[in-house]
Amino acid sequence: MRKIALLTSGGDAPGMNACIRAVVLTALHYNIEVYGYQHGYHGLIGQEYRRLRAKDVLNIIQRGGTILRSARCHEFKTEEGAQTAAKNLNALGIEALLVIGGDGSFRGAQHLSNYWDGQIIGLPGTIDNDIAGTDATIGYYTAIETAMDSIDKVRDTADAFERIFLVEVMGRHAGFIGLNAAVASAADQVLLPELFKDSENTVTDILAHIEGVKARRGDSSYIIVVTENLWPGGVTGLAEELNSRSGIECRPVILGHVQRGGSPVAQDRLLATRLGAHAVEIARSGATGIMVGEHHHQVVTVPFAQTWAERKALDPYLITIMESLFDLLQRP
Amino acid sequence: MRKIALLTSGGDAPGMNACIRAVVLTALHYNIEVYGYQHGYHGLIGQEYRRLRAKDVLNIIQRGGTILRSARCHEFKTEEGAQTAAKNLNALGIEALLVIGGDGSFRGAQHLSNYWDGQIIGLPGTIDNDIAGTDATIGYYTAIETAMDSIDKVRDTADAFERIFLVEVMGRHAGFIGLNAAVASAADQVLLPELFKDSENTVTDILAHIEGVKARRGDSSYIIVVTENLWPGGVTGLAEELNSRSGIECRPVILGHVQRGGSPVAQDRLLATRLGAHAVEIARSGATGIMVGEHHHQVVTVPFAQTWAERKALDPYLITIMESLFDLLQRP
Amino acid sequence: MRKIALLTSGGDAPGMNACIRAVVLTALHYNIEVYGYQHGYHGLIGQEYRRLRAKDVLNIIQRGGTILRSARCHEFKTEEGAQTAAKNLNALGIEALLVIGGDGSFRGAQHLSNYWDGQIIGLPGTIDNDIAGTDATIGYYTAIETAMDSIDKVRDTADAFERIFLVEVMGRHAGFIGLNAAVASAADQVLLPELFKDSENTVTDILAHIEGVKARRGDSSYIIVVTENLWPGGVTGLAEELNSRSGIECRPVILGHVQRGGSPVAQDRLLATRLGAHAVEIARSGATGIMVGEHHHQVVTVPFAQTWAERKALDPYLITIMESLFDLLQRP
Amino acid sequence: MRKIALLTSGGDAPGMNACIRAVVLTALHYNIEVYGYQHGYHGLIGQEYRRLRAKDVLNIIQRGGTILRSARCHEFKTEEGAQTAAKNLNALGIEALLVIGGDGSFRGAQHLSNYWDGQIIGLPGTIDNDIAGTDATIGYYTAIETAMDSIDKVRDTADAFERIFLVEVMGRHAGFIGLNAAVASAADQVLLPELFKDSENTVTDILAHIEGVKARRGDSSYIIVVTENLWPGGVTGLAEELNSRSGIECRPVILGHVQRGGSPVAQDRLLATRLGAHAVEIARSGATGIMVGEHHHQVVTVPFAQTWAERKALDPYLITIMESLFDLLQRP
Repeated sequence: MRKIALLTSGGDAPGMNACIRAVVLTALHYNIEVYGYQHGYHGLIGQEYRRLRAKDVLNIIQRGGTILRSARCHEFKTEEGAQTAAKNLNALGIEALLVIGGDGSFRGAQHLSNYWDGQIIGLPGTIDNDIAGTDATIGYYTAIETAMDSIDKVRDTADAFERIFLVEVMGRHAGFIGLNAAVASAADQVLLPELFKDSENTVTDILAHIEGVKARRGDSSYIIVVTENLWPGGVTGLAEELNSRSGIECRPVILGHVQRGGSPVAQDRLLATRLGAHAVEIARSGATGIMVGEHHHQVVTVPFAQTWAERKALDPYLITIMESLFDLLQRP
Repeated sequence: MRKIALLTSGGDAPGMNACIRAVVLTALHYNIEVYGYQHGYHGLIGQEYRRLRAKDVLNIIQRGGTILRSARCHEFKTEEGAQTAAKNLNALGIEALLVIGGDGSFRGAQHLSNYWDGQIIGLPGTIDNDIAGTDATIGYYTAIETAMDSIDKVRDTADAFERIFLVEVMGRHAGFIGLNAAVASAADQVLLPELFKDSENTVTDILAHIEGVKARRGDSSYIIVVTENLWPGGVTGLAEELNSRSGIECRPVILGHVQRGGSPVAQDRLLATRLGAHAVEIARSGATGIMVGEHHHQVVTVPFAQTWAERKALDPYLITIMESLFDLLQRP
Repeated sequence: MRKIALLTSGGDAPGMNACIRAVVLTALHYNIEVYGYQHGYHGLIGQEYRRLRAKDVLNIIQRGGTILRSARCHEFKTEEGAQTAAKNLNALGIEALLVIGGDGSFRGAQHLSNYWDGQIIGLPGTIDNDIAGTDATIGYYTAIETAMDSIDKVRDTADAFERIFLVEVMGRHAGFIGLNAAVASAADQVLLPELFKDSENTVTDILAHIEGVKARRGDSSYIIVVTENLWPGGVTGLAEELNSRSGIECRPVILGHVQRGGSPVAQDRLLATRLGAHAVEIARSGATGIMVGEHHHQVVTVPFAQTWAERKALDPYLITIMESLFDLLQRP
Repeated sequence: MRKIALLTSGGDAPGMNACIRAVVLTALHYNIEVYGYQHGYHGLIGQEYRRLRAKDVLNIIQRGGTILRSARCHEFKTEEGAQTAAKNLNALGIEALLVIGGDGSFRGAQHLSNYWDGQIIGLPGTIDNDIAGTDATIGYYTAIETAMDSIDKVRDTADAFERIFLVEVMGRHAGFIGLNAAVASAADQVLLPELFKDSENTVTDILAHIEGVKARRGDSSYIIVVTENLWPGGVTGLAEELNSRSGIECRPVILGHVQRGGSPVAQDRLLATRLGAHAVEIARSGATGIMVGEHHHQVVTVPFAQTWAERKALDPYLITIMESLFDLLQRP
């Protein structure tokens, strides 16, 4: 194997740079040249690439974002787009393409495989952890940490004022960040898409729980963590609903894009490094059409289709714990 | 002097606990007893107090929030409320009341002085820094740091995606956090209440500036810091306005209450400690009706009325710098 | 089950408070009373205990150290000491004792079991991760993070000055913190007890590697991570040795006790919460003589003797990666 | 003015990059070209320079270290070295040289002025704050924060174990970091070069104070902050001395080079930005032989000789506070 290419696609995630570094250094270890495409699939079509050498990945392990930049690219989803990409990869003599991104990026990779004969390998890079076949995704650990740190800060005010706060965290349509950040920050309640039933009961339950906690604990500070895309109008909408129903005043806090950035925590740097190194190893073995992931602390490979076929489940024990604690707080 | 009382009022700010600690330890140094009222003026009316000893302030210098809790209290603004408070203070034998809070809290203190003969001393505790007579307020340094850290993280995504972000920071009606966080995080543009003229020109200027930066720098990443309460609908409203006028897509990020919490940075702990110690010193000298502040690194005292009489100005040199950099970025 | 007791023993670790909280809340969920002994086994002999209620564990999940304090206790290792402890536990009507600590603490627990009929359950709390039967120990994730953050900072100076730094990290006789912090911070070299052969070859290899990296990379900045207790005289001794052998100047940095403190990272809070809750569950099932751990993201139980019988291995893939990167950096 | 040059010299400090950025952007604002010399005076002699453009200073405000790298240079102190530097500056057409560094760097600048006719302007960049004529130096605020954060962590263990810790902080021969970090972290005692009398009395005083605190507070946790270069053998030597005199066990922690690195805090970025911008402004006015500093929140200029002529004093009020608190803690 002499030449591979690398790109980052979809939403950026802390640890993407650590992954780029691991890919480049491992490839160089085997005397393989690495070409980095800028702006994801967009740059693949537009031939925005440069050779990546060891000095290009010096001192990047600790940086958020991605030095290769990212983008969404609709053109790539067409037949024509993928054919242009294939032609460009062949012109450059690329034998394997490594794609760091989320499930949209992997669907793109699958699409490309219909038009290009080279190997395609995916690396799971998204803060949302919504990719089956890997216990964690690059960026996920940092997002939990950032959300938790922010909720720790909100709690200072919640306690000082005995106020109710609704904190909206990211996750797309998955509750991984929400559940973990809620337990880790000792939030009083969490709303997750996986467990959500209906709006009516939810509001009733929350109001009853707030009353229960207040009665039991003797103060009115209360924090609810809510996953984005779950409630119409988000936490602002929910705050209004709670207010109109009971007169209680809730303050919404939307953590937003802060969760995508920042220096990656150690667990993300380590995951990114292991997966990046392994992706090059299996590229050398001829593998294609698969994502590199980690299961039970071992590097594994998973066919692309499997990464989006099933919905990865939340840790049931963590849900039980959260519910026990809720129950406890509520009982008189 | 044998007995003083202490309370925290209004919005909480990081460093209030460091200030409580300094007051308590300095008072004990002079063998003065300290009584802490809970929930601000509300607790003063309701007689929620407890004796504060050295062990109560052990290990609190690093904590956000306030161990005395805070609250807003409308009842206190009435004649009856203030008279009840005065009666309670007299019953307990309090000679001086120390109030940590913002300008609303100082107005309350002034109001109380019409009904109570004891000494009243204010300590500036608010993240907004909107109190005249002191160069900085307790909590202000931490709020700048938190806002800056968050913008640093947003920049990771802004750069990776070449996107435009509008970041809303706190400050009530003052641009201190906005200006300092914008310069410290190398934001591309800032909207401050002190410099704001009209909406129409602002939108035109921003759009022109974005174009200028894009042309000059070759990418489209761009961050605007906006003080709260400045634009109708906040940064969400501004994002819609920019989009409807030019089709550009902007992402709003509202930092919110995260800015009020967190462990205070060193400068807030030091300021809180100096002011807290000085407040006890001047209480012993018989002073009343004044706020303790810091000017040119010296502790100073300022009559209450002066703290809200004038609007404290932003650092003109920092404004000049920010504008020079804008100009530079915009030029072809 | 009506009454359990809890203590923290041995070196403190971030997350112990999160574990205490989980134990207390879960026990209360089942209407079990919890008694906390202060100062580890020392307090068990001296009867320093207090009832722990929900309000005692409010707002502690984010704090380093242990609210129950810890201590080393030689007296407990004697027959008399253990008998006194057994008598005290019986007098209080304790049915199960939960011990959060490292392997010395578990040996103590085993010793106690010869004199006391109640159930004894261990929870792995140590930054060193040197306990078999659990993939991670409470405090370990935070220690890696703290070490990595510190090395990130040292690198700023290493790069600015092109200097060589030797950074000593904790780990007792295990290389877990060293290996993970070295990979996560992109250190150039790491010395671990598990891989250490002899001093003579080590010095020769390091000097050759430094030369190789300098030649290849064109600068002289270089960071070596060294586990404590590995080199005579620690990194100060090693710096002198390298200097006397080759004239190169190395600066030693001993991270020291900073690694034991700080607010726990999310992964430690989550681990501590899961293990604490599970410990109460299995106590109710009648289990004894076992440690609660986590393997492949599942809670598990392990007999005490097994936790120290074998030496837990470092991740072989991470070692391979580190060595590949070393090799790469060294090659011309 | 058409061409200026810039270098960083002496120990690196967080905020140097923010200062480089401000110099470059302000110069470009006036259409002045900026040349950056690498490795301080060493690169001035060896002609290691490059043109600095706006894109070179993008995204560096938040980074520790210095993109221009630094070095110590003995050759520059000779007549020959300075003459070579002068010749090189003239060959490049440099009109003003800006030097970011500490007092050694300013002495070097003064030395150069004997051989070169161009303007020379200093910018105070050192964590030690030991430069007269400016209230603070670039990097000082971050060093206090890093030291304080580390002591906060050490306190977790100190409290958990009721142990005595000696924490050594940087400062060269000045107590600025020591005093501020000690007050901000609520240390129990501090040893500063400015207040140090003799070793014999110091040991006696410390031992008496430890006893007093223990008696008063009921526990034995105790933290002493010690400035480097004050005690023979540093905190390790002091720990041995205390142990041999009284049998008490103290643990030394040497914070070391960690204090020089890290992302600069907001106050350092703001100071660096104001001073960097002002340095270009006064260069345009023809000034030379002066350092740019800040006094009472205003930018000021000071002749080089004045920056080292007098020893800048510690804040006397902060010393009084620290001593009052010591006294309090000691009293029965």
